[in-house]
Amino acid sequence: MRELEYLKIINNTLADSSLLGDDCAYIDPSFLGSSGIYVTQDSLVEDVHFSLNTITPYLLGKKSVNVNLSDLSAACAKPLFITISLSLPIDCDDYFVSEFYRGVNEVCQDYDVKVAGGDITGSDTVFISVCAVGSKCANYKISRCFAKDGDVVVITGNHGDSAAGYLLLKENNKASSVLVDAHLSPNAQVDKSKIISQVCDSDFAMMDTSDGLADALYKIADASDVCIEVDLDDVPISSELKKTFPDSYKNLALWGGEDYQLLCCVSKSVYEKLDKYKFFKIGVVKKSEGRANVKIKDGCDTLLIDEDIFDKNSFNHFTQDMSEDRS
Amino acid sequence: MRELEYLKIINNTLADSSLLGDDCAYIDPSFLGSSGIYVTQDSLVEDVHFSLNTITPYLLGKKSVNVNLSDLSAACAKPLFITISLSLPIDCDDYFVSEFYRGVNEVCQDYDVKVAGGDITGSDTVFISVCAVGSKCANYKISRCFAKDGDVVVITGNHGDSAAGYLLLKENNKASSVLVDAHLSPNAQVDKSKIISQVCDSDFAMMDTSDGLADALYKIADASDVCIEVDLDDVPISSELKKTFPDSYKNLALWGGEDYQLLCCVSKSVYEKLDKYKFFKIGVVKKSEGRANVKIKDGCDTLLIDEDIFDKNSFNHFTQDMSEDRS
Repeated sequence: MRELEYLKIINNTLADSSLLGDDCAYIDPSFLGSSGIYVTQDSLVEDVHFSLNTITPYLLGKKSVNVNLSDLSAACAKPLFITISLSLPIDCDDYFVSEFYRGVNEVCQDYDVKVAGGDITGSDTVFISVCAVGSKCANYKISRCFAKDGDVVVITGNHGDSAAGYLLLKENNKASSVLVDAHLSPNAQVDKSKIISQVCDSDFAMMDTSDGLADALYKIADASDVCIEVDLDDVPISSELKKTFPDSYKNLALWGGEDYQLLCCVSKSVYEKLDKYKFFKIGVVKKSEGRANVKIKDGCDTLLIDEDIFDKNSFNHFTQDMSEDRS
Repeated sequence: MRELEYLKIINNTLADSSLLGDDCAYIDPSFLGSSGIYVTQDSLVEDVHFSLNTITPYLLGKKSVNVNLSDLSAACAKPLFITISLSLPIDCDDYFVSEFYRGVNEVCQDYDVKVAGGDITGSDTVFISVCAVGSKCANYKISRCFAKDGDVVVITGNHGDSAAGYLLLKENNKASSVLVDAHLSPNAQVDKSKIISQVCDSDFAMMDTSDGLADALYKIADASDVCIEVDLDDVPISSELKKTFPDSYKNLALWGGEDYQLLCCVSKSVYEKLDKYKFFKIGVVKKSEGRANVKIKDGCDTLLIDEDIFDKNSFNHFTQDMSEDRS
């Protein structure tokens, strides 16, 4: 019986399977802390978010956890536990389950996260849905609606590499392992999230850039009803990306998605404390002039992103999939 | 942009959308209680767990929540909040999302459960994964491994109706709306779970019977290393099931699955307190004779379920789907 066999493999692969065994896992109040919890759930669907032709089960396991830890990081939440729902075609084998959970286990061990169950069922294609719970760490509230006039716009790292890696994989082009790795094996910014939680001094806006830098900028501008001004020259872009995609690297950095960096809008005094930890100031927040928008300065040009342009450009899982060009 | 439109529909459909808006939802410690939480996650996959030819989006929304509340009920946990991951084909429309969430909302309102986010993505078929969190209510521990010699085996209601309803739907046979409704619109035993939590006086074994009564009996026997003896005459079976499936109703009651009743093994004194609330004693727990098993008395015959028979008969999502006969 495959389901029972898979459960045995999972038990044997996880370093800590103490929360498994019943349909519900019990989480002790001492484990949750006293400040409340953050919860998030994100799915990865075969041929929409990944292709088994280009990602290994091991990296898929790692990525499935990291994309959820990225959302917790954007809330300054310390990851505590995850549940995993895995739906697999009948031709999946023990190797897939074992390697997938080896990847899951590695990320969980890195960040001291427990696997607290989930389920495993059949399906035509691979579906993965992870729910992640973390404890509140920052003393202040974090939401995309808290950006305000005078804030500094800060990001944690390079943008565009993941989308570039995706394009290379699609063309079966191994020109750059740096870019391909950025796509297949992203890391949640758990450590930088911890730094932010330690230096913040009031409520602030933060998101991860999983759906693209421009997407996150506009979502924060829209939710906070502000104008965000960014200088594209200040956005960190890898030399590898510029070299491999000399004509489209700016587009990839803005709209590519899946870089899983953090984007926050914080006071100048908080930014000054962040500066020494390799955070990048890319712009400022200003009052909206009647309509929330994002202005991106690119040399002498300025790209305006308002509601109409956002709707047209932002990554949309319903109209684009891995068989189309996201750039 | 469909994803944003769907999010607006979800916001408008839910009576309480206060936890939505960011990628993570914050849950206040006062909402969690001080006794710890239970967490569970269950998925429903199109053409494995349901067919859109036979279930409406509204009933699918209700069922997606109920199957998870059923797992919380089996842990005597008071449901607090859920997250929902919904993957939809590109030809899904606003009506599907609106009706699905109308069903979700109805169950959530019935039990005072909040929707705390999730995600919505594309896919080839409909994939639903719900994570549910509840607060610990019983003063004692509950696990499938706590059945012991002398316990009384108790269930909360009829078995077999749901599987019978599934068979009728498959044959496009509307002979019995009672059976069809049992399959399409199951209810989690939240209220009976509450009664059990109030009368239990020590650690005990409980599961829901989502994968079948025989499945749950054997899983408890196996995890607790005991022998469970059941008299099939004591298992409540509806007159509708006996009338519609005179030759196979016993098989459906034992192996059918998706009845979402509770099965618990409790002391005689606890059972005496449960008796007045419409619980059904179906058997007793005895010491295992070297090997965990279940003995089901059926008139002069006794059906023995041990590891081999269990592996052969139990419902398995990897080898059986809705295109095959589960009976």
